[in-house]
Amino acid sequence: MYNSDSKSTIKLPEPSLRRLPWYLAYIKLLQTKGEEYVSSTQIAKEIGVDSSKIAKDLSFINISGKTRVGYEINSLVAVLEEFLGFTSMHKAFIFGVGSLGAALMQDSGLSQYGLEVVAGFDVKPELAGTFINHIPVYPLSQFTQKQKELGVQIGILTVPIDKAQSATEEMIAGGIKAIWNFTPYRIRVPKHIVIQNTSIYAHLAVMFNRLNNIK
Amino acid sequence: MYNSDSKSTIKLPEPSLRRLPWYLAYIKLLQTKGEEYVSSTQIAKEIGVDSSKIAKDLSFINISGKTRVGYEINSLVAVLEEFLGFTSMHKAFIFGVGSLGAALMQDSGLSQYGLEVVAGFDVKPELAGTFINHIPVYPLSQFTQKQKELGVQIGILTVPIDKAQSATEEMIAGGIKAIWNFTPYRIRVPKHIVIQNTSIYAHLAVMFNRLNNIK
Repeated sequence: MYNSDSKSTIKLPEPSLRRLPWYLAYIKLLQTKGEEYVSSTQIAKEIGVDSSKIAKDLSFINISGKTRVGYEINSLVAVLEEFLGFTSMHKAFIFGVGSLGAALMQDSGLSQYGLEVVAGFDVKPELAGTFINHIPVYPLSQFTQKQKELGVQIGILTVPIDKAQSATEEMIAGGIKAIWNFTPYRIRVPKHIVIQNTSIYAHLAVMFNRLNNIK
Repeated sequence: MYNSDSKSTIKLPEPSLRRLPWYLAYIKLLQTKGEEYVSSTQIAKEIGVDSSKIAKDLSFINISGKTRVGYEINSLVAVLEEFLGFTSMHKAFIFGVGSLGAALMQDSGLSQYGLEVVAGFDVKPELAGTFINHIPVYPLSQFTQKQKELGVQIGILTVPIDKAQSATEEMIAGGIKAIWNFTPYRIRVPKHIVIQNTSIYAHLAVMFNRLNNIK
């Protein structure tokens, strides 16, 4: 039912891609309840996204619903998890083992979604040789060597703002292909580098502002 | 220069609001370098956002640049930090002290951005009475009582998917006004409740997908 060759050729629009994990979360919940089928109308009602949009999003991932009953839940979960990359393990390095970097190393939940943090790097000498949640921390100077050993594609950026751009350039020079940027700094990268910004502090600002408005 | 009365009446569009922390990060960097003035053109070049858009975003926050020299950096940093809510402390509870919840309790960086996590709640009996990063963890049954003592407005949601909606309802019933949802589940809330979704696993999926496309 699922043609894995197509995975690398489908260029799903980012908004669609970002909605897929919401659908997955909901149908996994139905799965634990022993449900067998789900329709896009049913997902729509729960998630608050238009059902035609859901059907279109799901049309990108080579699974088709049956008339009247909808999508077979077990297949949809399996296909979505594989499509989203949650079933295969992707190695990552963390750059900057400060408060947020160390917190992300603690979050073993990431591995359930296909991300395995294999090492952290930091410039602070006192961190070198330590372990956080069994993950080793190395001096930044050992990055190139560790990269040769481990061939990691993903770099998680949690350095201070003033080091964000220089760390990014070092990561790319060392062979990192995708950067997950947790800093509030807008790093610049060449076109062939994948970038994903998760500005949790920006989300915080939005929340504070909205909270002020309802008072 | 800054009229704090206006803070509660300005309804800044969310995309503008989300860009402000990027500007702040960059001008703070200039500040540490001893720069005195910055123009929207200069910010534009660094951040990759159109300069007219930047000028418009900044027009919402009661600060005006001077012809030729631009914005005075120290004032702009101060005004932005206050506008974004980073200078006053907002108390928050964490609901669900699993891997991600505990990691967020470890992230003392949040307090630098105005968020003070004052307690965590969990249903697991073995967590009750413990401390993470000096923050106490209580049984969920004590939420109403602790809420009466502490009057917290922000709830951080890090429970498992199947508990997301019920925990949300319990939070709102107990007086929580804003929910920072870290679960991939789309929770439903009444209109007067502020909600901010930070689906870090969805960002991960986008990154994996893009990485597959460049291979």
